Amino acid sequence: MDHKGRQLRLQSALPALRLDALLITHLPNIRYLSGFTGSAGALLVSKAGSVFFADGRYTAQARAEVKAAKIVIASKAPLATAAEWLSARQQNGRRAIPFKVGIEGEHMTVAARSLLAGILPSTFRLRPAPPLVEKARMVKDNDEIGCIRSAVILGASLFARALEVIRPGVREAEVASEMEYAARKAGAQQMSFTTIIASGERSALPHGRASQAAIPGQAFVVCDFGVILSGYCSDMTRTVYVGRPSAEARGVYQAVKQAQQAAVDAVRPGISVGEVDRAARKSLQKSGLAKYFTHSTGHGVGLEIHEAPRVAAGQTEILQPGMVITIEPGVYVPGRWGVRIEDMVVVTEHGCEVLTPTSKELVAI
Amino acid sequence: MDHKGRQLRLQSALPALRLDALLITHLPNIRYLSGFTGSAGALLVSKAGSVFFADGRYTAQARAEVKAAKIVIASKAPLATAAEWLSARQQNGRRAIPFKVGIEGEHMTVAARSLLAGILPSTFRLRPAPPLVEKARMVKDNDEIGCIRSAVILGASLFARALEVIRPGVREAEVASEMEYAARKAGAQQMSFTTIIASGERSALPHGRASQAAIPGQAFVVCDFGVILSGYCSDMTRTVYVGRPSAEARGVYQAVKQAQQAAVDAVRPGISVGEVDRAARKSLQKSGLAKYFTHSTGHGVGLEIHEAPRVAAGQTEILQPGMVITIEPGVYVPGRWGVRIEDMVVVTEHGCEVLTPTSKELVAI
Repeated sequence: MDHKGRQLRLQSALPALRLDALLITHLPNIRYLSGFTGSAGALLVSKAGSVFFADGRYTAQARAEVKAAKIVIASKAPLATAAEWLSARQQNGRRAIPFKVGIEGEHMTVAARSLLAGILPSTFRLRPAPPLVEKARMVKDNDEIGCIRSAVILGASLFARALEVIRPGVREAEVASEMEYAARKAGAQQMSFTTIIASGERSALPHGRASQAAIPGQAFVVCDFGVILSGYCSDMTRTVYVGRPSAEARGVYQAVKQAQQAAVDAVRPGISVGEVDRAARKSLQKSGLAKYFTHSTGHGVGLEIHEAPRVAAGQTEILQPGMVITIEPGVYVPGRWGVRIEDMVVVTEHGCEVLTPTSKELVAI
Repeated sequence: MDHKGRQLRLQSALPALRLDALLITHLPNIRYLSGFTGSAGALLVSKAGSVFFADGRYTAQARAEVKAAKIVIASKAPLATAAEWLSARQQNGRRAIPFKVGIEGEHMTVAARSLLAGILPSTFRLRPAPPLVEKARMVKDNDEIGCIRSAVILGASLFARALEVIRPGVREAEVASEMEYAARKAGAQQMSFTTIIASGERSALPHGRASQAAIPGQAFVVCDFGVILSGYCSDMTRTVYVGRPSAEARGVYQAVKQAQQAAVDAVRPGISVGEVDRAARKSLQKSGLAKYFTHSTGHGVGLEIHEAPRVAAGQTEILQPGMVITIEPGVYVPGRWGVRIEDMVVVTEHGCEVLTPTSKELVAI
């Protein structure tokens, strides 16, 4: 991974924002910029170079992982260490002019900001910075796309296990447990989110985690799951039918499948994510089901399972080659049933490549 | 669960803090106060009663779960909905005096605070409040202790599975996957944290997640794991020896076991958590191993795997009946080996009850 290049690009964005430094505290951003995978740390990026702060638990790990940054280890919390390091540096340099430090306002807590402000001398200014690293992370480089491909392939392999296990009377949680077991055996670090297995009426819950409910004899079963491999997430959804689907059930499924394809077909560089969302909704309008599509069409995926951009109505982010997003329209009729189909796609020079290798034909079990 | 009582006690604490209301945004705190288990919401507690805010995805869930609070559903993010609701209420009441809203500074981000401040009229004041709900949550009621007991028993049952699987040459991740599979089968919602299986030199890493490393032929294996059941967490550690432990290995193990027992023996109402920590360290000093005990002795457990109080040097929190904490001293010799033994205990009227039912004798495999 090109950690040095990522830091240099971030450095070069600071003057336009009138920032002397940016203090990164969001762990996925720290990992993206430096390679550090531990669970506590802070990274200061400035034109003078980068400094990584951690506590003694991470001495060995920081030395092994952190790239392109000086490492400072102390016994305090990394944020306090960073603030003290900045203060000391200022005294040595006898700076009189204000030193403007950008903070990640979307991630830093009010209490953490107060702690920083309490340690730093009054010549420092803390300024919430725009989500620069999240912006950079939207466009994946080839190394990242390679990691994502591997995660998607491993994730997709779990669907075969789901098909073996899903039967009337089997508990949703049992299906999830068999899939998660298969994931671990296949080398996944962990699931990228709590596996959703939602059957029958529960399939109408867009976020119906696997419960102790038994799968009914005639029902849709929404299966939404993903893994983390080398730090990168996968995310996919398939909906199967247990029993013999009625013409109406088939119709709903086909409508979602068409909407999903319409959104995939809309993905190409230069159009906005809002247009992708609109393509899915427009397709569902034909079958009168658009009102049952109650969430957004998708989201970015990478080091985090949900990251920028949001693929939603009104969102204006323009697609660029290298962006990786989900396309996951659904139809949810409360008290009745739900269907969702989700692929991950990577934006290419002229359109997109669907990364998820799994058929979207309706499977009846 | 006595959600109403919890809210009333919180309400009654507001005047002394000169707060007119407290806006709860930390999800475990929302769950504790209202019963809501979803992943987005906000709860406003004031003398006029409580109001719960969520978006449309949670309409059914909020109605089914939320106790002792009015429910307001809107299409925006819950925080924005809460701010708009407060603004409208003020206009209706034509209040002129400042209305002081406490926020959870340890949890609310700088950006969320700005969003709130941007919506609320200037007569509102936002004030970071002390961690009132975290304080209340430290002392568990009987319903909670019942849930925790069940989680601890289920969690402890996984150790039997670990003993079946741990053998020289087996990968650490495979042990973890077998335990997690058993947990799901036994009805756990999920693991309470990423399972730690750390063998050989890796046992000297206090946070050594299960890796792809094979368990050596002569080695300590630290097993640290827990489950979530009915929302409550369990947490336990046992260290086993693969092969035939040397006299030195047995000595280290016995020293940790004695230190753990010394800390358990110290637990009773009226003493500080710092004294419990000291009891463990003092015991390890006898064997000259105290310098290898590089973390704190324990932490509270409940709806979160790590919650107040911290059982650490210098901490002054006084133990009260109903507090549930871990007691988990360890000895870590870098590059060589590590041993940790951890139980969960509940503080009783005169001492404590060890909840973890598992033997602490050294098991050699």
